[in-house]
Amino acid sequence: MTAPLSVEYLPAHPPVVLQDKMKRYEKFADEIAELIRTGVLAAGEKVPSVRHASRTYGVSPSTVFQAYYLLEDRGLIQARARSGYFVREHAKQPLPDAQSNPRPAHTTDVDVSELVFSVLGSLKDPNTVPFGSAFPSPHLYPLARLARSMAQSLRVLSPHAVIADMTAGNPDLRRQIALRYMVSGVMLPLEELVITNGAMEALNLCLQTVTQPGDLVAIEAPAFYATLQVLERLKLKAVEIPVHPREGIDLQTLADSLAHLPIKACWFMSSLQNPLGASMSEEKKRALYELLQQHQVPLIEDDVYAELYYGTQPPKPVKSFDRDGLVMHCGSFSKSLAPGYRVGWVAGGRYAEKISRLKLMTTISPSVPAQAAIADYLQHGGYDRHLRKLRHTLEMQQSAMLASAARHFPAQTRVTRPSGGYFLWVEFPEQVDSLQLFQLALAQGISLAPGPIFSATRRFGNCARLNHGHPWDEASERAMEMLGRIVTAM
Amino acid sequence: MTAPLSVEYLPAHPPVVLQDKMKRYEKFADEIAELIRTGVLAAGEKVPSVRHASRTYGVSPSTVFQAYYLLEDRGLIQARARSGYFVREHAKQPLPDAQSNPRPAHTTDVDVSELVFSVLGSLKDPNTVPFGSAFPSPHLYPLARLARSMAQSLRVLSPHAVIADMTAGNPDLRRQIALRYMVSGVMLPLEELVITNGAMEALNLCLQTVTQPGDLVAIEAPAFYATLQVLERLKLKAVEIPVHPREGIDLQTLADSLAHLPIKACWFMSSLQNPLGASMSEEKKRALYELLQQHQVPLIEDDVYAELYYGTQPPKPVKSFDRDGLVMHCGSFSKSLAPGYRVGWVAGGRYAEKISRLKLMTTISPSVPAQAAIADYLQHGGYDRHLRKLRHTLEMQQSAMLASAARHFPAQTRVTRPSGGYFLWVEFPEQVDSLQLFQLALAQGISLAPGPIFSATRRFGNCARLNHGHPWDEASERAMEMLGRIVTAM
Repeated sequence: MTAPLSVEYLPAHPPVVLQDKMKRYEKFADEIAELIRTGVLAAGEKVPSVRHASRTYGVSPSTVFQAYYLLEDRGLIQARARSGYFVREHAKQPLPDAQSNPRPAHTTDVDVSELVFSVLGSLKDPNTVPFGSAFPSPHLYPLARLARSMAQSLRVLSPHAVIADMTAGNPDLRRQIALRYMVSGVMLPLEELVITNGAMEALNLCLQTVTQPGDLVAIEAPAFYATLQVLERLKLKAVEIPVHPREGIDLQTLADSLAHLPIKACWFMSSLQNPLGASMSEEKKRALYELLQQHQVPLIEDDVYAELYYGTQPPKPVKSFDRDGLVMHCGSFSKSLAPGYRVGWVAGGRYAEKISRLKLMTTISPSVPAQAAIADYLQHGGYDRHLRKLRHTLEMQQSAMLASAARHFPAQTRVTRPSGGYFLWVEFPEQVDSLQLFQLALAQGISLAPGPIFSATRRFGNCARLNHGHPWDEASERAMEMLGRIVTAM
Repeated sequence: MTAPLSVEYLPAHPPVVLQDKMKRYEKFADEIAELIRTGVLAAGEKVPSVRHASRTYGVSPSTVFQAYYLLEDRGLIQARARSGYFVREHAKQPLPDAQSNPRPAHTTDVDVSELVFSVLGSLKDPNTVPFGSAFPSPHLYPLARLARSMAQSLRVLSPHAVIADMTAGNPDLRRQIALRYMVSGVMLPLEELVITNGAMEALNLCLQTVTQPGDLVAIEAPAFYATLQVLERLKLKAVEIPVHPREGIDLQTLADSLAHLPIKACWFMSSLQNPLGASMSEEKKRALYELLQQHQVPLIEDDVYAELYYGTQPPKPVKSFDRDGLVMHCGSFSKSLAPGYRVGWVAGGRYAEKISRLKLMTTISPSVPAQAAIADYLQHGGYDRHLRKLRHTLEMQQSAMLASAARHFPAQTRVTRPSGGYFLWVEFPEQVDSLQLFQLALAQGISLAPGPIFSATRRFGNCARLNHGHPWDEASERAMEMLGRIVTAM
């Protein structure tokens, strides 16, 4: 796996062989973090002593020391006086396995929109504790630095560009995005890149490019609710593929469905899936691609959380295995850099030209100044430095929420521990009705995203998605306590 | 008709009775301009002497003087030494009547997209004389002043707003747009307003809100080619209603079609129609509304050129007659203020909430910084002053192109003379094939928009749309001469 390299100092034609800059102790810390995430090292358990670890893993004691400091800083372990390091407290139950799909070949007309809008509409009060929000805190983003990039880029933007950049997009932005792909190991022809109004437009365009009303589309269960809304709007039928909370979609169910159903496209999040946070392994991503390649079914890869991985190892997209342009890889700056700017893209593979034409017929172009500002920031703003800080903050806040869940939620509650992003998926005891919980919590000024809005078949009735993208404070802690009380009363 | 009032100095709660600020001589100039446009006063003809006009129209000689100075400044008349004022030379043929529609009840599957894209794709060379362009020169817009508004608005924008403004839109921008409606006589409830990625997204959302694939939609013939592309994309069938080049759509044909066909929506440009430049009279707009109201068929009113009227009298939209929310009025800042910013809107009437939800499912929001910048400009930038200058420039350039057409095009050529905007519609002699003309002109570095891209049934084969939104210079003149030579050779 390639380390995250800063693209800021790359020459216009960077060397093809890129140096692996990840340090020894960072690698070792990532390995220990993975043991914690997967539950091999449980909450409250002692981590191996420095001497023991040094011997067992064949690394120097100073590497172990540095790794443990880093893990403490990341909120994963904590020191106890004279006793060494322990895994920080968090919800103690093991992670849930994916709910098995009772009818894998079942297809569903989607009609979840009304429910989603009624939930979203109730989140508007800014005084609500925003556990139900889809966005992290805007204070995590370098908005003032972006504003400087905006001012600078508008000073040098030629009047001609405000019109010319509408069709193809800002050329500097296109180059910067392609550079970031290259650094992560994907050699992307610039012609594949279509700049869009955020990833949401990209996903819509992709889906319309490869489907007709009535077609079957494979999606995840649970899935991002907007996926369900878009399918509903385009009169597409959903084939729900169960997602394992750590390992991602169930490939066997997908293989069976592809063999028996005329599926026209797949829409998956292969890394940091929303809402579960699951990331597929590289081997599994490769196998997914080979399966789709065999059936010649295109993949719409929704990768909007790509930059929010914790630690140092960026997940590779399925797109990196794409040999024949079958994968449409959708990204965005909305979650990583510039919320509200509405700039995203799709690396559209063999469908790029169709996608681009469709965009010209629907919105023409994302805002030219917003594109120029982001292009300037990517060149001069310190994007990778910002990202490191952002990832660190989100991981710290995840630890805080997990610890709080352990303190306040009933013991049978099960919680995911994703390796990135800002969502936890919580499975409450079976008798909990999360739509009712949503209403009761909202009356107390606390929002959450109830499980059924993530399913075309209204499953996950005892689940909820909680957002830890906001600063963890006294109000967050009290809100978790209140949620715990409501759930216990149920 | 209400005069254009400056909204810059209006208090937060402006008085309900607005003063008519249009001066006597401006009104008189507008009346003479109308006589010239409609051909009552022909090219080269002497306009009435000051004494004669003063007596005939019951205005003071000084009013006539001032009006004639203004008309000269607007490029409509010119003084000849010791002889008085004459109508400036332009294409001498009378305006064409609308081509009669041979089968008014005929419906058409649309498949014009490929042709449009092949035409548009060939316009990219910046060295081409841009008669085929859809945009006026970007130098006509206050881009530097807008950049200042962008910098200022980003300084004061709260981080919270980058997320909150995505759903409803920038509140200042919404208020400013509603104010401008109010000044033009439309009292618009703020809830009706949906901010979009330019008018193109607004039009798409409106159409999807009131139609299903297979439905019939009444459109103009000729129509803006994007209208045809959108219908094609959404699998809608076109009912083409002929447009008279001065008076707008043929209401009788529309009435017949509504009586006999299950038309689900109309998509019309009631003012400065693209490509003909036709503007319907107020009486006709009212009659159109009454007809649609009677059939309860919604109107999607595409009014993107609303601010580009010449003279002093803004055309009223059909929306101003709307009593029951049947009209979706789509506007944009792309043609009047901020090309490339991609900020438009729709006053959605009874469909506003559906439109808003559909937007959340497709692009979520236009760029928040772009919205904030335009809101700041509308409050502090001097929008009405800019618009007066812009209208004046476009009118001058129209006169220049008309005069050039008179010099270089064959005598049988017929040309429109719209009362605003930046397009002329040219009807060449019947044997001219405008697609072939397009190719031959392009080889000479001249673009134009050939007639067939404006028709679902590939009509208007001897017509073309010419853009006069760019500074008129020696190259423009030579290009017209070249077009004239090619056409004559045909």
